[in-house]
Amino acid sequence: MRLTRYFLPVLKETPAEAQIVSHRYMLRAGMIKQASAGIYSWLPLGYKVLKRIEQIVHEEQIRAGHIPLLMPTLQGADLWRESGRYDDYGEEMLRITDRGGRDLLYGPTNEEMITDIFRSYVSSYKALPLTLYHIQWKFRDEIRPRFGVMRGREFLMKDGYNFDLTKEDALHAYNRHLVSYLRTYERMGLQAIPMRADSGPIGGDDTHEFLVLAETGESEVFYDSAVTDLTFGDRDIDYDSVDQCAAIMEEFTTKYARTDETHDEALFNAIPEERRRVARGIEVGQIFYFGTKYSEPMGATVQGPDGKPVPVHMGSHGIGVSRLMGAIIEASHDDKGIIWPEGVTPFHCGIVNLKQGDGDADAACENLYAQLTAAGLEPLYDDREERAGGKFATMDLIGLPWRITVGPRGLKNGVVEVTSRRTGESEEMSPEAAIARIREIYGA
Amino acid sequence: MRLTRYFLPVLKETPAEAQIVSHRYMLRAGMIKQASAGIYSWLPLGYKVLKRIEQIVHEEQIRAGHIPLLMPTLQGADLWRESGRYDDYGEEMLRITDRGGRDLLYGPTNEEMITDIFRSYVSSYKALPLTLYHIQWKFRDEIRPRFGVMRGREFLMKDGYNFDLTKEDALHAYNRHLVSYLRTYERMGLQAIPMRADSGPIGGDDTHEFLVLAETGESEVFYDSAVTDLTFGDRDIDYDSVDQCAAIMEEFTTKYARTDETHDEALFNAIPEERRRVARGIEVGQIFYFGTKYSEPMGATVQGPDGKPVPVHMGSHGIGVSRLMGAIIEASHDDKGIIWPEGVTPFHCGIVNLKQGDGDADAACENLYAQLTAAGLEPLYDDREERAGGKFATMDLIGLPWRITVGPRGLKNGVVEVTSRRTGESEEMSPEAAIARIREIYGA
Repeated sequence: MRLTRYFLPVLKETPAEAQIVSHRYMLRAGMIKQASAGIYSWLPLGYKVLKRIEQIVHEEQIRAGHIPLLMPTLQGADLWRESGRYDDYGEEMLRITDRGGRDLLYGPTNEEMITDIFRSYVSSYKALPLTLYHIQWKFRDEIRPRFGVMRGREFLMKDGYNFDLTKEDALHAYNRHLVSYLRTYERMGLQAIPMRADSGPIGGDDTHEFLVLAETGESEVFYDSAVTDLTFGDRDIDYDSVDQCAAIMEEFTTKYARTDETHDEALFNAIPEERRRVARGIEVGQIFYFGTKYSEPMGATVQGPDGKPVPVHMGSHGIGVSRLMGAIIEASHDDKGIIWPEGVTPFHCGIVNLKQGDGDADAACENLYAQLTAAGLEPLYDDREERAGGKFATMDLIGLPWRITVGPRGLKNGVVEVTSRRTGESEEMSPEAAIARIREIYGA
Repeated sequence: MRLTRYFLPVLKETPAEAQIVSHRYMLRAGMIKQASAGIYSWLPLGYKVLKRIEQIVHEEQIRAGHIPLLMPTLQGADLWRESGRYDDYGEEMLRITDRGGRDLLYGPTNEEMITDIFRSYVSSYKALPLTLYHIQWKFRDEIRPRFGVMRGREFLMKDGYNFDLTKEDALHAYNRHLVSYLRTYERMGLQAIPMRADSGPIGGDDTHEFLVLAETGESEVFYDSAVTDLTFGDRDIDYDSVDQCAAIMEEFTTKYARTDETHDEALFNAIPEERRRVARGIEVGQIFYFGTKYSEPMGATVQGPDGKPVPVHMGSHGIGVSRLMGAIIEASHDDKGIIWPEGVTPFHCGIVNLKQGDGDADAACENLYAQLTAAGLEPLYDDREERAGGKFATMDLIGLPWRITVGPRGLKNGVVEVTSRRTGESEEMSPEAAIARIREIYGA
């Protein structure tokens, strides 16, 4: 993309309403614009990152064998009356009446609707195991929306639901989700620690939250520092293997890590003192096993191997897709702006032309742009008539991980400069070597 | 995808509520499930087609130089009060009150919101031309939702908005959209004819609707049969070229083609009698030029080259993404089921194993599956223990354009069978030749 043809409305001033760094930078970098309290438009740069995050979530869900569908944003009230949650859910549920006087609601979650889909079509245990998921906009009418997309009212979430014949099978689905979530977050450059949590209005016994450590997190967390040494890395997982998934579950959840809701002071104090940590965390996902809580009242049963009807064992599993963008920025920034991890960056690299209009500089930039594009990469070429300082400030603010700087002086020596946003280190090399370097970084 | 691991709830019975063929087949093929009147869940197969349609729309918009963003589904009422449409829009607008008593609405279209985004950031003519678009769920509270996704209440739509300094520039944007829409529909295997139309509640002078001819269409259309001979084909278009876009506009809109709203009997009768056609059409898109209708009341002005403020010239341009799925089926089916055009098919081909459990047949199917997948294609392998007749009926119903049939008898002679869903013609060939054939069809 050429910046002169893009829509990137960066702001010089820091908007007064933004209390935390991710909110400030998303506004300043022209990524979002508030439409109403807790409701945002995703401007082109923000939309690109949102799509990259969404794509990673899809890829990892499909890798785990989960099947995508899409449920609507609006739901009829009847299903929620069946489960008993219509009255229970409280004021966070946005209730709507249509022109025919029917009660609708903007879905805050989808246990009822997915259970209805399941019971409408599935009657035999032979169709199990089955995990269905979708990525869809949801609405929770927060009394105090704040922190930008971190606690918005209209938000994008992946929610998945497993249907299994037995508790044992459902716990494998639980572990499988845990494994797929670890991979998902790592691909986004995040360390998200699974912590034993409280189930809240979803219900159920087993639940883990995934938390990203950050000073601005809404939850106080207590953990053994050894958990932060764990990395998922490039493991080749057979998601059908009960043992493999259980082993990873054990590896990542045995050491003490809890939110304040489930914190146990005695257990915490049993950790060697030098490894005890108290910090804050941002919740970016949660997995639940809740057994037959919805299948029993809603009649989601299958015929078992013995011919008798059995209510299915279920769980639900969520990733906060739009919230993740805020979490990533909270975890990865400096005082000049955002530092995108390569996995979610909106553009793979920036090209800064130090002297727009100079024949050699323009030609070199065009050539870099064409070759990177041909390699399947998306560079952002700052082709504005603007001073170098302004161009650098924009690139630093929007946080592209790599920048290629092109100027007449360097070109006389046959070199351009490749700069890492994270380290700030620059290296001079030929344009061809710069292209090869960027391609190597992204495997393109 | 292996069918035993997929969720494809095909129905044997035709649901009584479905009046038109696309609705019947989408229900029977397990593509959608009604959640509430005019509100649908997109089951896995339907979701896949929806994503393919959406992807083509994105690619063609980006090719035309238009920039994607994403506005929220819910909008504050204030912007609509500013434009005067809050009261004008009528009962199709779903009005909502949140817990704080604020008036919201589920966006039926986005002229106000995009104009607000524009005026918040753009102050100079130098930022023009600019076209922003999004693909987002919208809601119109139809009094009689029917025909499945063809006239739903919650629907997915691409809506784009151009901002230009002059009427002349805005008319180029209008033509550019017309060109990009012609390409878009053709890639989906559709002929959509631009017809002079009525502007309705969007307003404006210039507007064309794109109609797909189908007996079940909601509009009566009148046209010169010569328009159906026009094809866009594989033209290489420079979307910045005013002349190229204008020439295509002229080529595709000069011959008589109008809906009943704008029909002119005298003009129609001037066409040679043998070329006069009266038929029905499904509206799948519309483009508008409406000048300063929104920019003036909402203060969307830029500083012109002479330093004086000028309200921008705008247009809006929509494609009914979810509705297109119904239109494609209406235009492409037979009495056995859907016939997907290659451009939007949910799976590139089906693999039917005539004798599941037979060592040779299983191995040959696995090999086809692995090689097609490795080539970047998505086959659907029917690996169920089911009779051949049932497998063929499912494949015909869900409409994959190509089927590879594998059985022990053919394998003894070293052949499998490749069948076109459209023509019904089969050809025997080696498994390697079958793979090469499917790859060639999709350019994979």
